[in-house]
Amino acid sequence: MTQSVSKLAKGIKPSATLSLKEEIRSLEREYGFRIINLTVGEPDTGPTEDVLEALLEGGKLHKYGPVQGDPELREILSGVINKEIGVRYDPQDIAITAGVKGGIDILMRVLLEPGECMGIITPFWVTYPESVKIAYGIPCFLEPDENLRPDPEKWPSEVEDKNIKVLLYSSPSNPSGVVYTKDELEEIAKIAKEKDIWVMSDEIYSKFLFDGKKHVSILSIEDVRDNAILVDGPSKRFGVPGWRVGYVAGPREVIKALTKLQGHVNSGASRPAQYAIRAAYTSQKAKEATEDMRKRYQRNRDIFVKGLNEIDGISCVKPEGAFYAFPSIENFFAYKYEFAGEEYTIRTSVDFRNFLLRKAQVAGVEGTPFGMDEYIRFSLATEEENIVNALNNINHAMKELHL
Amino acid sequence: MTQSVSKLAKGIKPSATLSLKEEIRSLEREYGFRIINLTVGEPDTGPTEDVLEALLEGGKLHKYGPVQGDPELREILSGVINKEIGVRYDPQDIAITAGVKGGIDILMRVLLEPGECMGIITPFWVTYPESVKIAYGIPCFLEPDENLRPDPEKWPSEVEDKNIKVLLYSSPSNPSGVVYTKDELEEIAKIAKEKDIWVMSDEIYSKFLFDGKKHVSILSIEDVRDNAILVDGPSKRFGVPGWRVGYVAGPREVIKALTKLQGHVNSGASRPAQYAIRAAYTSQKAKEATEDMRKRYQRNRDIFVKGLNEIDGISCVKPEGAFYAFPSIENFFAYKYEFAGEEYTIRTSVDFRNFLLRKAQVAGVEGTPFGMDEYIRFSLATEEENIVNALNNINHAMKELHL
Repeated sequence: MTQSVSKLAKGIKPSATLSLKEEIRSLEREYGFRIINLTVGEPDTGPTEDVLEALLEGGKLHKYGPVQGDPELREILSGVINKEIGVRYDPQDIAITAGVKGGIDILMRVLLEPGECMGIITPFWVTYPESVKIAYGIPCFLEPDENLRPDPEKWPSEVEDKNIKVLLYSSPSNPSGVVYTKDELEEIAKIAKEKDIWVMSDEIYSKFLFDGKKHVSILSIEDVRDNAILVDGPSKRFGVPGWRVGYVAGPREVIKALTKLQGHVNSGASRPAQYAIRAAYTSQKAKEATEDMRKRYQRNRDIFVKGLNEIDGISCVKPEGAFYAFPSIENFFAYKYEFAGEEYTIRTSVDFRNFLLRKAQVAGVEGTPFGMDEYIRFSLATEEENIVNALNNINHAMKELHL
Repeated sequence: MTQSVSKLAKGIKPSATLSLKEEIRSLEREYGFRIINLTVGEPDTGPTEDVLEALLEGGKLHKYGPVQGDPELREILSGVINKEIGVRYDPQDIAITAGVKGGIDILMRVLLEPGECMGIITPFWVTYPESVKIAYGIPCFLEPDENLRPDPEKWPSEVEDKNIKVLLYSSPSNPSGVVYTKDELEEIAKIAKEKDIWVMSDEIYSKFLFDGKKHVSILSIEDVRDNAILVDGPSKRFGVPGWRVGYVAGPREVIKALTKLQGHVNSGASRPAQYAIRAAYTSQKAKEATEDMRKRYQRNRDIFVKGLNEIDGISCVKPEGAFYAFPSIENFFAYKYEFAGEEYTIRTSVDFRNFLLRKAQVAGVEGTPFGMDEYIRFSLATEEENIVNALNNINHAMKELHL
């Protein structure tokens, strides 16, 4: 065979947060390190017992189910949206997808013509631009302000110049932890309305808000509801990313098109998982488990971000939500360190990531795949002990950097 | 919002086998019919108790798993391929996907450049051409002989003229039940080698072979192994299509590219389902349940196909595998019948399908989405009683057709 895989397949970057796992494993094997892993984008605890038990019952749903997703789960989600966002979406206007990724992948093909631009607000979740490219679209990036907040005043001309068809962001933001304010969302909504374009709002971290902050969704801005599409799911709040369930709510035309494509693309999410997720959204225990996680992650943020900011040269915006810290490390570009008899120079966030892996035995994800090479992302979804130890290790390692 | 969904989304046909369900339901509501449903492409029985129970344990795999799929399941599948096809595929060369559809959807984007042709052997599973279009490829159709068997001698020039990049078929065939012989597969392999193109072999029905026939896979032809890709899964043999698990085995480059894309597209199949599927492939009970289904479906075929061929004007190739009957009904084009005070004329397979729905209260799927408008597909994966009753009803209804 002289033929090879498609140009598309060659050009796609592997998912950074997932592929890094293997690199850590190899470093552990080679040097016997016990690396503190702050890379993964998932809660450290799993579903409650009642949700787990519902899986067994859900297994009896072994035949093909409705492509749009379990009707009872869609009914429940309609209630969740009503309660948490304050708007009424009919179960008809909600589709269950094979994880949030599965929803985004199909939406790209529903909303974009090949060659059209997706406006992604920086910094962004690593999968967004790859997902756009997989649908033969073009990712375009909209820069934030110096505090990593959205900066919509600057964007109208870019939207126009690049002929952007959709705006896409996550709030609470992965990786920055920035939570968009009502004012910021209204600015974004205004662009969407004026330019007559779609806006996709990824609200998967909405249950992880700190310091008493309340979640605001762009769906709550009535004027933009015809243009707005929500993607969300149970993976983070109930600790079940491995179960692969997500959902999309939006204009009926979009949900219908998504469902039609989903009938061919993958038939939707696994039914036992969908059934068990019904239990999750209605369980008091599950609700309490989410709140416990939220509190722990807030405490971890308090410790870790304060500690990072005490290190000379590192500055970290205080996350208002999600479960990540995203400090700037650009002050250390051109710094050097020694490891295993060799001298290394830090020139990129990947170099800084490798420095921490080697000298602090702490794993973070380089900023590049999130659209900002001067940053590094740490996950706070872990035991407090790991956060404290990681901070100590980083503190010690930083002393070995020199010009 | 004046913007609309993409041209692609508008042009895709809904999955015929799944959407028909809703039409049947509405006819039942309106006329109080109890329709015998022979449309669905899934077994009538579900997983065995031991497999079901494994789901509960599998629920504990709640974190993200390896994108390529559960390593132990891939190890098991490597053994299944070795035993059933007689070739050794390393677990590295196997990827678990979100159903077979999920595998095919990604493969389209891995194997085709936009605008390139996929050569689909007619008749075909309804999702193939839509799946090609969703990847911006062009479906091209390769005609069978008069017995619905592959006719590879005729194809080399078509492959050349249309610049076909991949050949795609299912054997045992959905919808025809034709099982490709070693000779036919060797002819197909020869085209793939000579034209330097891929061949995708969908073998999801391989456990449903009748009259002592043995399954032959194109993977067993050594010469073509660099070009050949297997898609298969547990859905049919273990009665779990709703669990959404499939797999792909093929050249390492293809599996690597598929895995890379899968990391962004949906992260793969639901982990509890993958875990339970390990149990299915290793369970003696599950194996026996498959064999019981196979025997029942063979008996159903014997009754139904014999009965159909006794009806003047209908002719049905005897299925050698899978669980469908696919008779030709073109002799009845131009025939008329009365229903609810109106006269209808049969001009297409959709008209014939509606005739059976209305006059026989039997549901089949029109041949059009399978690439042959002169045919209709019936599923035999049901109780013998339904097969007998459906045949009686059809027999009676046929008497009401007139020119």
